[in-house]
Amino acid sequence: MTKALASDNYAGVLPEILEAIGQANQAHSKSYGNDDLTAQAKATFEAHFGENLEIAFVFNGTGANVLGISCVTQSFNAVLCADIAHLFVDESTAPETFANCKLIPLPTNAEGKLEVATIENAIIRKGDPHFAQIKVLSISQPTEYGTVYSLEELTAIGKLLKAHDIVFHIDGARIFNAVASLGCSLRAMTKDVGVDIMSVGGTKIGLLFGEAVVFFQREHAQYLRYKHKQSMQLASKTRFIAVQFEALLQQKLWHKSATHANRMAQKLYHELRTLPAVQITKPVQANAVFAILPTAWHEKLQAVLPFYVWNERTQEVRLMCSFDTTEAEIEAFVAVARGF
Amino acid sequence: MTKALASDNYAGVLPEILEAIGQANQAHSKSYGNDDLTAQAKATFEAHFGENLEIAFVFNGTGANVLGISCVTQSFNAVLCADIAHLFVDESTAPETFANCKLIPLPTNAEGKLEVATIENAIIRKGDPHFAQIKVLSISQPTEYGTVYSLEELTAIGKLLKAHDIVFHIDGARIFNAVASLGCSLRAMTKDVGVDIMSVGGTKIGLLFGEAVVFFQREHAQYLRYKHKQSMQLASKTRFIAVQFEALLQQKLWHKSATHANRMAQKLYHELRTLPAVQITKPVQANAVFAILPTAWHEKLQAVLPFYVWNERTQEVRLMCSFDTTEAEIEAFVAVARGF
Amino acid sequence: MTKALASDNYAGVLPEILEAIGQANQAHSKSYGNDDLTAQAKATFEAHFGENLEIAFVFNGTGANVLGISCVTQSFNAVLCADIAHLFVDESTAPETFANCKLIPLPTNAEGKLEVATIENAIIRKGDPHFAQIKVLSISQPTEYGTVYSLEELTAIGKLLKAHDIVFHIDGARIFNAVASLGCSLRAMTKDVGVDIMSVGGTKIGLLFGEAVVFFQREHAQYLRYKHKQSMQLASKTRFIAVQFEALLQQKLWHKSATHANRMAQKLYHELRTLPAVQITKPVQANAVFAILPTAWHEKLQAVLPFYVWNERTQEVRLMCSFDTTEAEIEAFVAVARGF
Amino acid sequence: MTKALASDNYAGVLPEILEAIGQANQAHSKSYGNDDLTAQAKATFEAHFGENLEIAFVFNGTGANVLGISCVTQSFNAVLCADIAHLFVDESTAPETFANCKLIPLPTNAEGKLEVATIENAIIRKGDPHFAQIKVLSISQPTEYGTVYSLEELTAIGKLLKAHDIVFHIDGARIFNAVASLGCSLRAMTKDVGVDIMSVGGTKIGLLFGEAVVFFQREHAQYLRYKHKQSMQLASKTRFIAVQFEALLQQKLWHKSATHANRMAQKLYHELRTLPAVQITKPVQANAVFAILPTAWHEKLQAVLPFYVWNERTQEVRLMCSFDTTEAEIEAFVAVARGF
Repeated sequence: MTKALASDNYAGVLPEILEAIGQANQAHSKSYGNDDLTAQAKATFEAHFGENLEIAFVFNGTGANVLGISCVTQSFNAVLCADIAHLFVDESTAPETFANCKLIPLPTNAEGKLEVATIENAIIRKGDPHFAQIKVLSISQPTEYGTVYSLEELTAIGKLLKAHDIVFHIDGARIFNAVASLGCSLRAMTKDVGVDIMSVGGTKIGLLFGEAVVFFQREHAQYLRYKHKQSMQLASKTRFIAVQFEALLQQKLWHKSATHANRMAQKLYHELRTLPAVQITKPVQANAVFAILPTAWHEKLQAVLPFYVWNERTQEVRLMCSFDTTEAEIEAFVAVARGF
Repeated sequence: MTKALASDNYAGVLPEILEAIGQANQAHSKSYGNDDLTAQAKATFEAHFGENLEIAFVFNGTGANVLGISCVTQSFNAVLCADIAHLFVDESTAPETFANCKLIPLPTNAEGKLEVATIENAIIRKGDPHFAQIKVLSISQPTEYGTVYSLEELTAIGKLLKAHDIVFHIDGARIFNAVASLGCSLRAMTKDVGVDIMSVGGTKIGLLFGEAVVFFQREHAQYLRYKHKQSMQLASKTRFIAVQFEALLQQKLWHKSATHANRMAQKLYHELRTLPAVQITKPVQANAVFAILPTAWHEKLQAVLPFYVWNERTQEVRLMCSFDTTEAEIEAFVAVARGF
Repeated sequence: MTKALASDNYAGVLPEILEAIGQANQAHSKSYGNDDLTAQAKATFEAHFGENLEIAFVFNGTGANVLGISCVTQSFNAVLCADIAHLFVDESTAPETFANCKLIPLPTNAEGKLEVATIENAIIRKGDPHFAQIKVLSISQPTEYGTVYSLEELTAIGKLLKAHDIVFHIDGARIFNAVASLGCSLRAMTKDVGVDIMSVGGTKIGLLFGEAVVFFQREHAQYLRYKHKQSMQLASKTRFIAVQFEALLQQKLWHKSATHANRMAQKLYHELRTLPAVQITKPVQANAVFAILPTAWHEKLQAVLPFYVWNERTQEVRLMCSFDTTEAEIEAFVAVARGF
Repeated sequence: MTKALASDNYAGVLPEILEAIGQANQAHSKSYGNDDLTAQAKATFEAHFGENLEIAFVFNGTGANVLGISCVTQSFNAVLCADIAHLFVDESTAPETFANCKLIPLPTNAEGKLEVATIENAIIRKGDPHFAQIKVLSISQPTEYGTVYSLEELTAIGKLLKAHDIVFHIDGARIFNAVASLGCSLRAMTKDVGVDIMSVGGTKIGLLFGEAVVFFQREHAQYLRYKHKQSMQLASKTRFIAVQFEALLQQKLWHKSATHANRMAQKLYHELRTLPAVQITKPVQANAVFAILPTAWHEKLQAVLPFYVWNERTQEVRLMCSFDTTEAEIEAFVAVARGF
């Protein structure tokens, strides 16, 4: 395979990230995150977010989500999430197995977002031991449809959850694409709107591997060090995850990567929308384009840049741009489409 | 920190491994292990072990052990292991949380090995629903004391387990050090003596990260693909673990690393045993030296090469050599000891 | 409290059941279900259902459902159920905790039933390790709305599930009320339409305590004896559950109880429907009447026979008749309503 | 079967208990423990133990132990217990499945008791995330060998645990036999010596079914109501467990039953010890006699009063007396032994 629009995890590693790993490969270091480079990466997060932060570096996105949620739940709790959430439909039973909690899927609007009224209606039966007690709401930002909650939407959700003493969790597997889309700071989109815990995706933005779980309320991280190990997400050579995040943040690689991928999605969107046979199905706000392409086109287009058919019934496809998607590739893809 | 004898996971990454990662960093690849490089690494394992093999590449040692065991157990099963096993004392409650099984710790002999009679006496109450039904025996090779089960010992255990229909599991976090110690092939020490499942440690032998779980009985891996994901051990960019193993095996880096680390341990052992105040406490058969050093020496020695005090009561210490431990370092360490 | 329409578990115990317990209280008996009375009760089930049956007597309804489902699921499986199912909204996280499975709630039609098309659309992503693999569909018969699936509806569901190799589970906490409603045999409504596993409710029909889990496919019960104990649902004095079921079945107490309760619900329904201010919201097919009563009536009516407000928003109430609800009580209740 | 010495759960139900159930069988009552009779039984416990008590009535002994422990543990915790503890060897994997905790079995002395030094040595690695963090110590009183910890021994354990902030749990499946043996109050043997949580066995002392879990520290029961349901141990008709305990305590049935059973064990012991071929293997302090009887005797003795062979290797048997064991039965049993 050369290149694809299938998923941003088809892409490889940013050269600067490999470089940072190489530079960190010197002599010995304490294991399991007790080393200086890990401390330094944490300090970089703190410099952005302010104090009272807790961070754990983990291996993958499922690990990040499940570890974060497990730190604030008892086994009789429930987690509200979108019915299309990665947490609900793409992480097997990892949440149930590791936290024992029940996931309660909620319907989203046409943009794949949870609306405040939907969430509010789902907050029921507090104190009733027969009902799994709601403790967390998890949203994906950007959503699984590539749309981005606005700061106003996030603020409204944060306010509702605070009123009900519910923890606000963000699955941020592509969180930098959302930040780049909104043009704000990461802090403005998370801590400042009332988010309590977030998964910060590294792999899809160009790391070799590695995600971070960030807690804005220190009491939520009371058991973090124990659950980090218990969840099988504690790397002995943690420093090699830490230095990737350090480079990502310090060198603003995230901004370069996310802006580029988002821009490629915009380009793809603007090209495709001019084709009468193509129906763009979701607002394009981050690095994904959702569209219904004539089935007859699929084979030839897949040969140029493979992609996922998102919905077998409607033939809606997902076209996902990465940090290394090029303008030429987009143009080649669109050229084939235009040829029909 | 410059260097240490604390743990082989204090060491960094073999240069050839970083090189292999760099070379694999080209264009796009299918995610979650559906790529060509992962297939190639699996083929390399098969070339050594023969057919009917199943392999999963995972993130860390706890993940490898727990995933392997969970594939062959029901939640009412028990796993026999040494009372000093990493699985029992160093993996938090990951086994209980993910597989729900009970661990039954058994006493080891002076060398840290489980004897056949000990295992046999523990195989009880088959069919009794009140007792967690024994399904797996897990040993560490080398043991946590740095000793190595002989092929005869392994064969005897394998025979006993087969007679009782119990799965033979090896925690091989340092399995290449054992192979180098015995001077046999990896296959001769595992598949050929009746081992069913093994964790193959990559991190401690010089990978950036990554372990493999190998199943010699295909029926044991019936649910592997589902449990791999569910256990949060499935990497989206699996190819970057696979290429490390490919390099490790194809370039025989494992042999170079393990032989060197073992040789350094032998050197350290031969130097220390000449000191009357030092008591070597375990046979030195892989890359660790266990010894009782006078407490008064610890501070100065720790300043040269930090190490773990294994047993606070007896002041027994563990001196662990790595692929990058040098003769000069050993000599510097011993020189300080000699100076007392 | 004298009497209520709140729930059929507010009722006490049928005198014949207490009598059966008293008669069984003689000398000693083997514990944990290895006794003659338990064998006899199982034989009585077999006499009705035919061979190849497995049964476990358990303590309560949640235990029955969770034990049944856990016997046929791996921890990476999913269970489809109605979004109003007791299993989903009234059993805390017992299913997730004990079986680790994901529950996938599906919307019901106006009668609280799952339609075949709804189920069929939910059967997706077979073989995809990222998605919890669907293994069981669970329905409640009667439904939580007191409606009863017809034999045709059950047959259609059974056929669909068989085609997809999905286990058909019935939560039968009030299963005898459904049988009495359909006027068929228990076997005709379960085994004969393709049901694989069912919870047979004893408590609500008039036992002191106790439910049965029945498996129609012996291979589904392969691990039953182990999971029975593991689930904390194995009674040491099992015979005292068994004799209650023996009396329930042999003396046809179930038929008397269920027919009576259903008849009381019909009476209540026919009386209430004549009141213009009352809106009957669900078909009355078993022992429950769902209705919207003017809020102003509630206090006085609750004083006569307490009941549950099912839906705070709509003020819909549930009026549940028991084996010991009397015609006089119904008349007294309706008289107060008529008085407004 | 007529009578047996196999287990006290072979016995039936005290007539006063059946009577109490019958009397409670009137009209309707709130379900799930929200009724007056349950409140009254709780008040009876409080009258004995003083304030700040929390109680849950559950179905069986495994449920009682696991619910109690799960209320005070996080999933990364460990529970210390005897290696012969019912909790470790007779409750399948219920503790691991429901609480996810690791059980750490400790060796007992010849009387089956955990000594303070053994416990103290096991309290290690506090704060180390790799090691399951010790949170609870559970003992059985009487022990599985039918011996009884003295108040001094209990006080010493309680003091040690308090110093280490470890919760003191008693598995009291036969707790009334221990109380009768020590001749003290239940409170003196539990709350007053530092016990935090206890399982109070009802089934073996003569209830139809039912156990109680008692918490002496209210903060330990913070999540009790949720975990009670989640653990599948919440009876809808809880009042029928409560009235059994009410009768057991108010009518001092426990004292009559326990004293009698203990006395029968003493009688059996005094008779058997005079036989030269019999070796009494444990001090007889509650209602069990452990002895090595010549294998050749077993068949004929089993025909009189069946019993368990405790240890196949040594032919040690357990002879367990119940509230309904008679002097004549003991004499008939011993007469056969004497005949050899």
